[in-house]
Amino acid sequence: MLKIINGTQSAKKLLSQIQRKVTLLKQQGRHLKMAVVLVGEDLASLSFIRKKEESCKKIGIAFELFKFQADIDTLSLCQKIKIIQEDPRLSALVVQLPLPPKVNTRQVLEMIDPRLDVDCLTSHNLGKLASGIYKILPPTPAAILHLIKEYNINLQRKHIVIVGKGELVGKPLGILLTQDQNTLTICTKFTKNLGNYTRQADVLITAVGKPNLINAGMIKDNIIILDAGTSYKGKKLCGDVNYKQVLEKVKMITPVPGGIGPVTVAKLLENIIILNS
Amino acid sequence: MLKIINGTQSAKKLLSQIQRKVTLLKQQGRHLKMAVVLVGEDLASLSFIRKKEESCKKIGIAFELFKFQADIDTLSLCQKIKIIQEDPRLSALVVQLPLPPKVNTRQVLEMIDPRLDVDCLTSHNLGKLASGIYKILPPTPAAILHLIKEYNINLQRKHIVIVGKGELVGKPLGILLTQDQNTLTICTKFTKNLGNYTRQADVLITAVGKPNLINAGMIKDNIIILDAGTSYKGKKLCGDVNYKQVLEKVKMITPVPGGIGPVTVAKLLENIIILNS
Repeated sequence: MLKIINGTQSAKKLLSQIQRKVTLLKQQGRHLKMAVVLVGEDLASLSFIRKKEESCKKIGIAFELFKFQADIDTLSLCQKIKIIQEDPRLSALVVQLPLPPKVNTRQVLEMIDPRLDVDCLTSHNLGKLASGIYKILPPTPAAILHLIKEYNINLQRKHIVIVGKGELVGKPLGILLTQDQNTLTICTKFTKNLGNYTRQADVLITAVGKPNLINAGMIKDNIIILDAGTSYKGKKLCGDVNYKQVLEKVKMITPVPGGIGPVTVAKLLENIIILNS
Repeated sequence: MLKIINGTQSAKKLLSQIQRKVTLLKQQGRHLKMAVVLVGEDLASLSFIRKKEESCKKIGIAFELFKFQADIDTLSLCQKIKIIQEDPRLSALVVQLPLPPKVNTRQVLEMIDPRLDVDCLTSHNLGKLASGIYKILPPTPAAILHLIKEYNINLQRKHIVIVGKGELVGKPLGILLTQDQNTLTICTKFTKNLGNYTRQADVLITAVGKPNLINAGMIKDNIIILDAGTSYKGKKLCGDVNYKQVLEKVKMITPVPGGIGPVTVAKLLENIIILNS
């Protein structure tokens, strides 16, 4: 029976659809361009940005990286974003998270023009999401829902457990899943006895960034696991789940790498198309 | 030991603070006015509106009710709301929910000017809420958080279980509590074995509108219950919890009536002040 969810394959299909749309827009004289704002030198961020750049180039979207020193203050960063957005050719702006702790992340995110906000992080786009009238979703939740649909995973009347409440995954995904017919539990690093909750999950979604956080003793048999965790052990990309250990118990699982990650990049690019069509 | 949370008393204190602010605004030549839009003749809605009207009158806020037939279509209702909002003296507009099933509720809610949206239901205000930069909260979640604060209820590292995912309570409260350091479970009418979840709750918040949904067998000892359920048995207002039955087991509980309800009305009026200050 099929167990491993192949995100690389799904992303490939998605990217070729997106590429067709990019070509079509070009024929109409519309050239797309994405800008990414990076503050500091976070290694994981640099690797994510490289993937975005490669994918953009592959499908014909122009790419520009704006790098700022880690000690930039909130106001100066807001000012820089304002200037970057004055470029009339710009079709997408990503502020790579996390920002340094000294920076007021929310204040910076609110500077993004909602029409360029392909990460769906502004309160404007979050409000659309929360009220169910969204055109775009944040890329990682979008990728998770894409795989859920593609692999015919039924969430109705199921107990879904999300581990992690971050801005990019746990929080928006929680808001989204609150709109459906399921039971939803959201855990964080403050949850006592995490295993008590994960063991109840029919579907477990993790987005923490802590290798081997979830082991075989923390899940029930026949569970579906979607692992959106991303952290680096040296140069090796890791998820949140002890993949080898849990493999025998699961009904389906996303590997890391090759699971949610590649679909996330594709969904980011799809958002550029949606916001510019 | 104190067990019963006295919402009537809390509301009284709140209302006298609000009244002072209304008077202050009047001295500055600023007269407040709330309009309520009612479609059809729902009995619970009529009773809620009466309470809003009484409270408005008591503290010096003008009140106007706009009633429409149950068979009005979405577009006509949107048009009516547009006209109502042209009144320059208007400081608040409430569209009383639920609307008839034929009406597109979200489309109607999006017609509300966010500056008049004291129920905090527009995607604009929901987005502020979801991103943590809100000035106002929907009145029932605001009332629940007010009582939690007033009664020194600690949510940190606790397991909070919400039953109900409605637009007015469960959904926005879920979004709000996702921002804190707790474990959160959200159940609905589609949850199998509801008791399995409610029995895990340190703090149980219900907002369903189904009398006696929660009985003594469904909770653990020393639980805190906040009952935001409202339904009518004849003329008697009921919560979701079998109050008499659970009373011996609970650490604290809100009665119905006299619990969350009166504070909700006060919080609605407080939102008028906040949006007009």
